Amino acid sequence: MPEDFVRKSGAEGLFERDLAPNAVNHVPLSPLSFLKRASLVWPEKIAVIDGRRRFPYREFALRCRRLATALSGAGLNHGEAAAVLAPNVPALLEAHYGVPLAGGVLAPINILLDAASIAFILDHAACKVLIFDRAQAEKVREVLNRLGRPIALVEIADPTAPEADSLGAPMGAIEYEDFLAAAEPMAWTLPRNEWQAIGVNYTSGTTGDPKGVVCHHRGAYLGALGNVIGFHLRPESVYLWTLPMFHCNGWTCTWAVTAAGATHVCLRKAEPGAIFAAIAEHDVTHLCGAPIVLNMIIHAPAEFRRPLASGVLVVTGGASPPSAVITGMEALGFRVLHAYGLTETYGPSVVCQWQAEWADLPEAERLARQARQGVSTPTMEDLAVIGPEGEEFPPDAARMGEIVTRGNVVMKGYLKNPEATRAAFAGGWFHTGDLGVMHPDHYVEVKDRAKDIVISGGENIASIEVEDVLYRHPAVLAAAVVARPDEIWGETPCAFVTLKEGRAANAEEILGFCRARMAHFKVPKTVVFGELPRTATGKIQKHLLRERAKHLRT
Amino acid sequence: MPEDFVRKSGAEGLFERDLAPNAVNHVPLSPLSFLKRASLVWPEKIAVIDGRRRFPYREFALRCRRLATALSGAGLNHGEAAAVLAPNVPALLEAHYGVPLAGGVLAPINILLDAASIAFILDHAACKVLIFDRAQAEKVREVLNRLGRPIALVEIADPTAPEADSLGAPMGAIEYEDFLAAAEPMAWTLPRNEWQAIGVNYTSGTTGDPKGVVCHHRGAYLGALGNVIGFHLRPESVYLWTLPMFHCNGWTCTWAVTAAGATHVCLRKAEPGAIFAAIAEHDVTHLCGAPIVLNMIIHAPAEFRRPLASGVLVVTGGASPPSAVITGMEALGFRVLHAYGLTETYGPSVVCQWQAEWADLPEAERLARQARQGVSTPTMEDLAVIGPEGEEFPPDAARMGEIVTRGNVVMKGYLKNPEATRAAFAGGWFHTGDLGVMHPDHYVEVKDRAKDIVISGGENIASIEVEDVLYRHPAVLAAAVVARPDEIWGETPCAFVTLKEGRAANAEEILGFCRARMAHFKVPKTVVFGELPRTATGKIQKHLLRERAKHLRT
Repeated sequence: MPEDFVRKSGAEGLFERDLAPNAVNHVPLSPLSFLKRASLVWPEKIAVIDGRRRFPYREFALRCRRLATALSGAGLNHGEAAAVLAPNVPALLEAHYGVPLAGGVLAPINILLDAASIAFILDHAACKVLIFDRAQAEKVREVLNRLGRPIALVEIADPTAPEADSLGAPMGAIEYEDFLAAAEPMAWTLPRNEWQAIGVNYTSGTTGDPKGVVCHHRGAYLGALGNVIGFHLRPESVYLWTLPMFHCNGWTCTWAVTAAGATHVCLRKAEPGAIFAAIAEHDVTHLCGAPIVLNMIIHAPAEFRRPLASGVLVVTGGASPPSAVITGMEALGFRVLHAYGLTETYGPSVVCQWQAEWADLPEAERLARQARQGVSTPTMEDLAVIGPEGEEFPPDAARMGEIVTRGNVVMKGYLKNPEATRAAFAGGWFHTGDLGVMHPDHYVEVKDRAKDIVISGGENIASIEVEDVLYRHPAVLAAAVVARPDEIWGETPCAFVTLKEGRAANAEEILGFCRARMAHFKVPKTVVFGELPRTATGKIQKHLLRERAKHLRT
Repeated sequence: MPEDFVRKSGAEGLFERDLAPNAVNHVPLSPLSFLKRASLVWPEKIAVIDGRRRFPYREFALRCRRLATALSGAGLNHGEAAAVLAPNVPALLEAHYGVPLAGGVLAPINILLDAASIAFILDHAACKVLIFDRAQAEKVREVLNRLGRPIALVEIADPTAPEADSLGAPMGAIEYEDFLAAAEPMAWTLPRNEWQAIGVNYTSGTTGDPKGVVCHHRGAYLGALGNVIGFHLRPESVYLWTLPMFHCNGWTCTWAVTAAGATHVCLRKAEPGAIFAAIAEHDVTHLCGAPIVLNMIIHAPAEFRRPLASGVLVVTGGASPPSAVITGMEALGFRVLHAYGLTETYGPSVVCQWQAEWADLPEAERLARQARQGVSTPTMEDLAVIGPEGEEFPPDAARMGEIVTRGNVVMKGYLKNPEATRAAFAGGWFHTGDLGVMHPDHYVEVKDRAKDIVISGGENIASIEVEDVLYRHPAVLAAAVVARPDEIWGETPCAFVTLKEGRAANAEEILGFCRARMAHFKVPKTVVFGELPRTATGKIQKHLLRERAKHLRT
């Protein structure tokens, strides 16, 4: 390795001669090193809190190392994927270390997805193992039918799951704790090189099937360090898992919190009562979530509220936080930091870095600044707004173009999709698909979405996927789905539908049709019947529908 | 580059196919990115304070970019070295960016070195440019005579220099500010690859000529991020330059402070009055220095003292801080963090990570923990104590062996000295040359330099342990223990002691103090009073004391 590595430099100068990298001075960057270090430096410090369970770093590391051995024993080979379908339980956190330690690639799956989508992912990433929460058992049964091939199964019997979630009959799969207990801890082993894949995260693509975003050890390591620095994580920090770990690996906080030697507090479900209780009980200092989570906190029933230690940092992203959300959270004693990114950039790669002088601005001005997406995170590199020819727009707050980024916290590319990878990286930038401007202070602000994504409650919904289902309804002639602004969810999918001549269908019937065919969070909240505005060439003019959706009354 | 880079992985699996690194997702790690980012994110924030001068980040970056262009114009080619011979003035800080931006290698030279040593360095590293502080002009004249070849000269007329330092007649070289002013700012350019050399730092070797430690962009980047995290540097931080930047690039704080977007406060000379004044005036939050600097602060004349904002973090290293130094600093309101490293590890690569529960220990126990060297820094990797066969010793606090490290914050090697490089990296570890033990909590403690062991009657005596006791004697200002040849015992410990002004103690009293506090075989057999010989950097020259000990009569 070292020889090849230095040869690429082509450097033959005085300061290169006899100075090739070697195993002493060049180690692959990997978040595995964070856990290895934390288990040495803070063996007795609590790493993970889960209900009544407490895992000190020594034990947390041992569990991850046992998981690695167990996965290898279950047939996971180097470079192969293991999927996890679970809420924020310790098993999913442990998989962020156990899978890569086994040389594998972690595929965290959104528990809200339907069986068809899950089966697609397991098939597409050729997953060898599926670790699932017992509450998902019924769905997993259907997934297996669709998958039509064997896969090693591990079932999590989460002690914090409510009674109802445990009702699913056990699948006969090995239980997660038994799976760990039977395995010896694997020795710490870094990846062969830092470009090795560490995970594959599926996004609801704008067209057709979800895309598998492949991320690498180097990016995971640097993204996590960027969060440690940007979010000021310290050994004393306590991080509450309100953000799903299956979203971009919890924005790399699965690794960042460990890098800081801080404490993870698992939370099976982000509900206001549980959130307030956890913050109060564990002296939480940090949490992340989409604006909807913040909204839920703000509007929590009075009986759930608890007095807060001031200064809990809430990092929000997935959508721009409305002013009311920022002020509402501040009134409760939180500090709000807005971050922006995509699965392709390991979550936040842009952050609305707080500036001391903003404190003196009139509130409306301050909130407007804080709602912008911001500047590159410390370990990302370049950020720009470009025009149709790839030209960089000046920071004039006026010229709207595509927001593009570049740096070490960008995915390897899309799995088995070189065409989409090439398109994403065209012209030497990663294309976010979002449109925006760059302000004179070099903060970018998203103005519109190039892609037809509806972001509802922090979940991405591809409008085309919903439209596909609508088109399958026998009475539907044409359909278009756009985002409708919503106080609670941020956005909800709004369907505009034209019926075939002589056919009838009401909204309830259309929605029932959808519910039977897609994950429920994707089902439109609104259906509007009528003609669709089109361009001369027949393209549906979604921008006009978005305007209409904004002004709908009901 | 990307193709070569991935080829080395040999990975042909599903998650590697069509997923080679490219210019969008793989950027060389370089501390240049820190300044590029800081100048965009905090353009108007003060980056550098120097006497009455203030450079906001925008201007600081422009100055560095001008320096790069000016250096190229002066003949500095890619991969060639530029030397700086200056105290902690902005020009030396700027050279940490301007030289690598020009593609060059920075050679910071200790201003306390004599002309012969400086000429050796300029010759050995083939320096094309020498930037020097005007106070060094007389010495530079002699250096040039010895060098016997032309070199581009740039002279710093430091406005904070006292009258006396400006007396040296100008050399006729271009003045630094004129040098900058004549150049356009160079565009930001990252190194061709992150393994490229960024600097060469000469160590005062224990034998023969100084060795040129070559460090690389990757290590500088990661070492700096390790400091940001380990020292909790934030945008609000204010860093006082008490540690010479020419010591391992100021332990990478030259880059770390910028990475955090914090403020550098330059300090031409680390004197108690200037230190207290700067802390008070600029709300300093961080400083670094050898224990001798801390001692100077503790014993500052009353008229220099100023009340301190509590919690200024002082990182100390270069020697283990005696208990009295820690408590003395704490009494003044400082927090002390002990770090350990060598030029070969970019300064601190081991840090005595504070543990919350230490606060509850009896003071003596707490101080004993804090005086240990510690654990790997966040971006370093492995740390061990090994025996003569390379075997790793268990963390038993008992078995003394060589302290060795491994990770990304280790030098490329020694310039033009493959033999020394091989020896330093033998057996897959970087050999520190220090002897120590690993405690059960995985903190290492240096017990002695490999050479500083006294072997008496077959028993190993760590001179540092004896010295520790001597330092605790109220009359002792400084102490050094070396081996004295002995017909009966082979060697015996011989103590050289400097007493505090106005204090008296005789040998018998000192030895009685020792006997009460250590195993009797470790008690010195000889005590010699007087000044201790020191290097230009203040290190006690034990080899001279060994010579003296050999020829003692009594």
